[in-house]
Amino acid sequence: MSLTESTPEAAARAASLSARGLAVLPFSARNDALTAMHDALMANKEAILAANARDMARATSASESGQLSQSVLKRLDLSRPGKYQDMLSGILDVRRLDDPIGKVDLRSRLDDGLELERVSCPIGVLLIIFEARPEVIANIAALAIKSGNAAILKGGKESTDSFETIARVIGAAVDGTQVPNAAIQLVKTRDVIDQLLGLDRYIDLVIPRGGNELVRYVKDHTKIPVLGHADGLCSVYLHADADKDMAVKVVVDSKCDYPAACNAAETLLVHESVLTTVLPAVARALFAKGVSLRCDDTAKAALKKALPPTSAALVQDSTEEDYNTEFLDLIMAVKTVPAVTHTNGDEAASKSSGEDASLDLAIAHISSHGSKHTDCIVTTSSEAAEKFMSSVDAAGVYWNASTRFADGMRYGFGTEVGISTNKIHSRGPVGLEGLTIYKYKIKGHGQTAGEYGDGAGKRKYKHEKLAV
Amino acid sequence: MSLTESTPEAAARAASLSARGLAVLPFSARNDALTAMHDALMANKEAILAANARDMARATSASESGQLSQSVLKRLDLSRPGKYQDMLSGILDVRRLDDPIGKVDLRSRLDDGLELERVSCPIGVLLIIFEARPEVIANIAALAIKSGNAAILKGGKESTDSFETIARVIGAAVDGTQVPNAAIQLVKTRDVIDQLLGLDRYIDLVIPRGGNELVRYVKDHTKIPVLGHADGLCSVYLHADADKDMAVKVVVDSKCDYPAACNAAETLLVHESVLTTVLPAVARALFAKGVSLRCDDTAKAALKKALPPTSAALVQDSTEEDYNTEFLDLIMAVKTVPAVTHTNGDEAASKSSGEDASLDLAIAHISSHGSKHTDCIVTTSSEAAEKFMSSVDAAGVYWNASTRFADGMRYGFGTEVGISTNKIHSRGPVGLEGLTIYKYKIKGHGQTAGEYGDGAGKRKYKHEKLAV
Repeated sequence: MSLTESTPEAAARAASLSARGLAVLPFSARNDALTAMHDALMANKEAILAANARDMARATSASESGQLSQSVLKRLDLSRPGKYQDMLSGILDVRRLDDPIGKVDLRSRLDDGLELERVSCPIGVLLIIFEARPEVIANIAALAIKSGNAAILKGGKESTDSFETIARVIGAAVDGTQVPNAAIQLVKTRDVIDQLLGLDRYIDLVIPRGGNELVRYVKDHTKIPVLGHADGLCSVYLHADADKDMAVKVVVDSKCDYPAACNAAETLLVHESVLTTVLPAVARALFAKGVSLRCDDTAKAALKKALPPTSAALVQDSTEEDYNTEFLDLIMAVKTVPAVTHTNGDEAASKSSGEDASLDLAIAHISSHGSKHTDCIVTTSSEAAEKFMSSVDAAGVYWNASTRFADGMRYGFGTEVGISTNKIHSRGPVGLEGLTIYKYKIKGHGQTAGEYGDGAGKRKYKHEKLAV
Repeated sequence: MSLTESTPEAAARAASLSARGLAVLPFSARNDALTAMHDALMANKEAILAANARDMARATSASESGQLSQSVLKRLDLSRPGKYQDMLSGILDVRRLDDPIGKVDLRSRLDDGLELERVSCPIGVLLIIFEARPEVIANIAALAIKSGNAAILKGGKESTDSFETIARVIGAAVDGTQVPNAAIQLVKTRDVIDQLLGLDRYIDLVIPRGGNELVRYVKDHTKIPVLGHADGLCSVYLHADADKDMAVKVVVDSKCDYPAACNAAETLLVHESVLTTVLPAVARALFAKGVSLRCDDTAKAALKKALPPTSAALVQDSTEEDYNTEFLDLIMAVKTVPAVTHTNGDEAASKSSGEDASLDLAIAHISSHGSKHTDCIVTTSSEAAEKFMSSVDAAGVYWNASTRFADGMRYGFGTEVGISTNKIHSRGPVGLEGLTIYKYKIKGHGQTAGEYGDGAGKRKYKHEKLAV
């Protein structure tokens, strides 16, 4: 680990060079570095917490003078019960994972003595930009080393002391292992984020770990691919046949389990035909949790009729902007999906095609307002569910389950690098696998491409699939 | 297909909306559209060739006045023997491929009645920017529809007539199928590339099909991910133990099979110890093909000594810039990799560690000068080959085989969208698979994330892997 005071370019170049050495390290050597990191962080807990206390003292005064939010303060605090231990066991969790490198997922005999393989390999150099949470450094450094990637770490100003101390401890620990010194670079210099984001020559992937503003800034200021998501505008759609109890459970959890999370639901779409049968129960349950609803006229009228006047304050008028807003709070936008009626044909067929047309409207709303994070349909119809899940373009498409399940731990992936709403490479919760790419290896015996072809005397490719 | 005269934004928005409909079309419906395209192109061959003849007439005068290169002229010409038939059979090749959509590659029981699946799905909207080759439109439109992606096509000015006519024929054919009308959008308006590249709200992936300058321009002017490669600076390294005959075959084919291709070799790295044993034979074979060599002093001296004075004109001095140059011509840069000697220890061990150090130097050269496309080592040592293939960060890393094998057809992938040097998503020759991403589906029965956890009365996740 280099605690570099040098230029961002020097740090990136050094990381890029060291990536070659890291890429050939055996699995055991990478795991040994994780063990060393874990042990050093355990041994240096006091020094790290003391550094964190200095950051906390500064942050507390900033918070008292209104310059820093309470939530940043909370994220910064490493002394909260269980947090330090979580950081340590996070490293061991990563160590336990299978090797993501060297996995062959395609093998083919192009011709006798000419074999093609596709093998997973590290991406190269990661740039990780942190905001407040200092423990994420340990987690990400572990993921980077495990996947054979070099990493450049750039911390936020609130966590300067914690960040430097943790990085120094990790650096000393890793220095005693086979991992190349320059593989993890810490950039302390301030105001260099723009310079780092311009180093696409050396840096292969940027992972911003922080709030929406950071992610959006990073996406707008670099040509390097960014793994992350700026927005989480998740919707729940209650279809015409939604079960009332299920709707209540799913909506309340999606909204209230942790409203500040990116996978919390912000918009509730309600089929017109369940405005008076299902919505009132959902609304009552949400009100009991302190949620206020911003409704279109139709939904508002239905709720006003069904609910006691006491809840009037919690039923508000929505504006168009509410359907584009990630509230991250106990507020939910409600929109009616019109029941589309068909006047021709027999009643059953027209009802079903009408519901299909309403489903299209719900999907269209999500397409134009959603953030491609996670969206849910509550329905008893598997046909409607399948159509919804195929049509909605989001990293997570759920049927009768809370949007809050969108999480690497809940998916069983172990630790995660982040949740991506990209549509290239990794999407949804991204674990170790998202830090790899592949290369094609060919092993031959001097074959030339010119030997092969359709003409006389030319060899033909065999293209035999081989077991992997 | 819309032959839109409207704004790029309107075209992109329409494509984006239609992508939803396309994403739910069954496999057979997508294949039917390919059949319709094929049949219509066959039926309208005369009209298309007439349009192409008009483009060719304009291009020929431009070429005669020196405004257009001969190679563009050649690429533009659809009447060359076999070319039209290749376009038609290319569509049938794509039709024969398995469905890339709806493939489940991960399935897990999170809990009873709560299942997680990862399913391949279309990326969404592709922007494809063509230069001269009009037949690529048919190929790419087939790949887009097969993979359920909407596509916006923007042709180059040289091929305007061919492009419009082909697009119109394809459009009319697709209109008679279940594929949504707006799924393939043709943008005819000129000078709108910058506008299109700014539409990251609607467009998910850009595929530039043209020369280096186009690819570089696109990469520099968009935040949308780009699938492609600007450079192909491939190297062949002759290690200390390289077999002479194999070296001759591999180097000559890598350089001469098709010098203008991106997978042709540009740099020859030669271990010092084979400068007089292997290099002269390689050089003689290259000279016979008309290749001139730009050599460093050591390699030049070795060649001057070994070869007759008649070849002197073909042995030139290299500059540093030659090692960064994609010649795309019968020119090759030659660089000596010093034999590193160790003075201590027994002779055999020191020789082997010296060769290892030389290998590091060759790898370092490729790392700092290569373009991560395809690089090859010629060696009889499997240890050296494995180290080279693991360390060199390129889409293709070859052992004793020509760099010219880097090609989708040769890999057995069938038709290809392009060759990517990206390190995110697809790399190397990219086929249908590269036009897909995945989504996570959860099917539940009203489960909430709040039910699960470590506390008393909380449910635990099962995370049982299920067969896919």
